[in-house]
Amino acid sequence: GRKVLIVYAHQEPKSLNGSLKRVAVEELSKQGCSVTVSDLYAMQFEPRATRNDIVGCLHNSEEFNYGVEAWEAYKRGGLSNDLIEEQKKVQEADLLIFQFPLYWFSMPAIMKGWMDRVLVQGFAHEFPNCYDSGLLKNKLALFSFTTGGSEEMYAKGGISGDIRYLLWPMQHGIMHFCGVKVLAPHVCFAPEYVSEEKRKEMLIAWAQRLKTLWKEEPINCSPEWYFK
Amino acid sequence: GRKVLIVYAHQEPKSLNGSLKRVAVEELSKQGCSVTVSDLYAMQFEPRATRNDIVGCLHNSEEFNYGVEAWEAYKRGGLSNDLIEEQKKVQEADLLIFQFPLYWFSMPAIMKGWMDRVLVQGFAHEFPNCYDSGLLKNKLALFSFTTGGSEEMYAKGGISGDIRYLLWPMQHGIMHFCGVKVLAPHVCFAPEYVSEEKRKEMLIAWAQRLKTLWKEEPINCSPEWYFK
Repeated sequence: GRKVLIVYAHQEPKSLNGSLKRVAVEELSKQGCSVTVSDLYAMQFEPRATRNDIVGCLHNSEEFNYGVEAWEAYKRGGLSNDLIEEQKKVQEADLLIFQFPLYWFSMPAIMKGWMDRVLVQGFAHEFPNCYDSGLLKNKLALFSFTTGGSEEMYAKGGISGDIRYLLWPMQHGIMHFCGVKVLAPHVCFAPEYVSEEKRKEMLIAWAQRLKTLWKEEPINCSPEWYFK
Repeated sequence: GRKVLIVYAHQEPKSLNGSLKRVAVEELSKQGCSVTVSDLYAMQFEPRATRNDIVGCLHNSEEFNYGVEAWEAYKRGGLSNDLIEEQKKVQEADLLIFQFPLYWFSMPAIMKGWMDRVLVQGFAHEFPNCYDSGLLKNKLALFSFTTGGSEEMYAKGGISGDIRYLLWPMQHGIMHFCGVKVLAPHVCFAPEYVSEEKRKEMLIAWAQRLKTLWKEEPINCSPEWYFK
């Protein structure tokens, strides 16, 4: 059975994001996948990259460099426990699903903190092992999110620009950089402004997509896909 | 005298980011500006958007919706004190400078949390007052940051794509959305991989730019600038 890690960032279990997460757990479990959820708000996950992430002495205590310290700590097994736990989950996963409400054209800070702190050099990438040869190659990622703005606002030529523009930093800059292949994003536009019936359809559509997810081909994660 | 708010996110005062911040405080003060710094790590600024941001009763305690709750709390003066403080600083500022190291094609989580929590509906935007009529119009913003990757990697056709691609969510999606006009970004590429002398030149170049900053025209913050 395949292993899936859902990194989930919503404060409210009754939200559409909460329901989308539950639908994914149910559908993927039904398929025989083993599913783990990192419920970031419930975990009170720490988003700040600080000296607290390094157990014991620093490599250079004269001038703190987070990237270097986290890299050195990773190599000697000296990262804080919350990071080691998350890295284990990532290491075991075949597929990472990121489920969140879009905040300011990006992920909520609590999830950005997960990226900043978990995907350390040595674990997720290590020059020249980046992009297609990133250390997390052979894994898949899928960004599943809700928006405040409507589909028209996020159309090409719409006031907020093509939704793909804002996926570049997340899909290419983070996942592709680590060697992870990216499946097409799953976007639920403006659920707060549609009927309860339409929201139910959104859940059904997500469940449907998950049924054939493992047959999907990753996107071609290059500028053409985003900005053609 | 003009008012400047520098939102600064680096753990180490001795870093290049720390020096860039200091140079800005010195140069702008010399010009007669009044400069305020929000030193996010030193403040242990909270990046997580949670129920703790709302003082007193919730508008809807059955189903927590952060955006709605923050909006309602803003209107009745019920946001947490740290947010009220930051909003005052923003309100008074003519120019916002964001100084940070690029983390994963974006700002560090601690700064993303500042955006998520400070720029609430009612204060920074309120439909239809968004983009050119956003509530923070008549202010300027400037993103000043350092990168890990080199200028060649961030060139058009480079492996990490044009640096402008990753500015879209920050400059357009956040600042322009709130009505803020955006000055050209200030990027110091790969300071960790250059000589001490080159780093000093970077500081001098920043000080030089600041001397004539108030004569600069904002960029045309539309898809053409980013993706032409």
